[in-house]
Amino acid sequence: MGRWKPDARGRLEQAALELYSERGFEQTAAREIAERAGLTERTFFRHFADKREVLFPHANPLRESLATALGGVPDTAAPIDAVAAALEDAAGLFAERHELACRRQAVIDANPELQERELIKLASLASALAEALRRRGVADPAARLAAEVGLAAFKVAFGRWISEPDPKDLPHLIRESLDQLKAVTAGK
Amino acid sequence: MGRWKPDARGRLEQAALELYSERGFEQTAAREIAERAGLTERTFFRHFADKREVLFPHANPLRESLATALGGVPDTAAPIDAVAAALEDAAGLFAERHELACRRQAVIDANPELQERELIKLASLASALAEALRRRGVADPAARLAAEVGLAAFKVAFGRWISEPDPKDLPHLIRESLDQLKAVTAGK
Repeated sequence: MGRWKPDARGRLEQAALELYSERGFEQTAAREIAERAGLTERTFFRHFADKREVLFPHANPLRESLATALGGVPDTAAPIDAVAAALEDAAGLFAERHELACRRQAVIDANPELQERELIKLASLASALAEALRRRGVADPAARLAAEVGLAAFKVAFGRWISEPDPKDLPHLIRESLDQLKAVTAGK
Repeated sequence: MGRWKPDARGRLEQAALELYSERGFEQTAAREIAERAGLTERTFFRHFADKREVLFPHANPLRESLATALGGVPDTAAPIDAVAAALEDAAGLFAERHELACRRQAVIDANPELQERELIKLASLASALAEALRRRGVADPAARLAAEVGLAAFKVAFGRWISEPDPKDLPHLIRESLDQLKAVTAGK
């Protein structure tokens, strides 16, 4: 994968992150983000519904990528292993974007409104995973549980990736989290 | 446990639920909730910070009850079993409030703003569980994973309790969810 080259959308993301980090989320207007990116406010709203959305540019691609990846896992895989494979695959979306991800998380962690939005995005990923499992013929509640458990492992792995000095790559951390989760669930 | 007798706080909860169900959350003002409960708007805001909070009256008691229950589980219990015991114990808070819980969930499910608030409350329960596990000497990431997994089981159990006709009691459903979760995680 080549180095990430910002287009209009990417420039808006970067400008928003810079301004949110410098002044805080509340103190930044969409107009100012557009200005910093050398674009118009209209362009901002063509790409993002509101000031919060610009911090979650991967929510939709991630959801689609998870569903696609799950579709490609052999039918013989147990639901939890299918979820693990899909999560590791989708984690590729974040490759080479570690620094951005860290700055983004610092902004989110400083603002309860943004934390709520983040939780909604994560919940929507869990729903997408559960739905993709049902399409594989996994019945509820197993589908929902496997999806929730997978997301829990992803959250913990992502948290480590963001906060540990010199972290392992994200797919590796996801695998590690799922292994730890299996041990925890087995009562170890 | 005796039948739930509504005091001022409980009357506000009931009035809010009635009005949110009849007219919708957006179309109901705090003043109208207070009126329906035969109380003043000032009393409403003495009990609840805003119109959303009145739907989450158990968030704080539940968090405290989980921490207390975890403190009472023998040190020899595995983290996941300690979490299970705490969740089953805390589920007693909902006993005899099934109908209220169902109506409440219908209101929340109809409003994205309320869903966000619900997710924040659940995330805060997971944090409280993880914190209580750390106090028991469980290290991260095991503490966080056991807490997240427990919450996932709780969410699925609560969803079943709310939606199934003639459901088993909540502690029973939590136990069942955790057993299913163990099976799912073991790759079955």
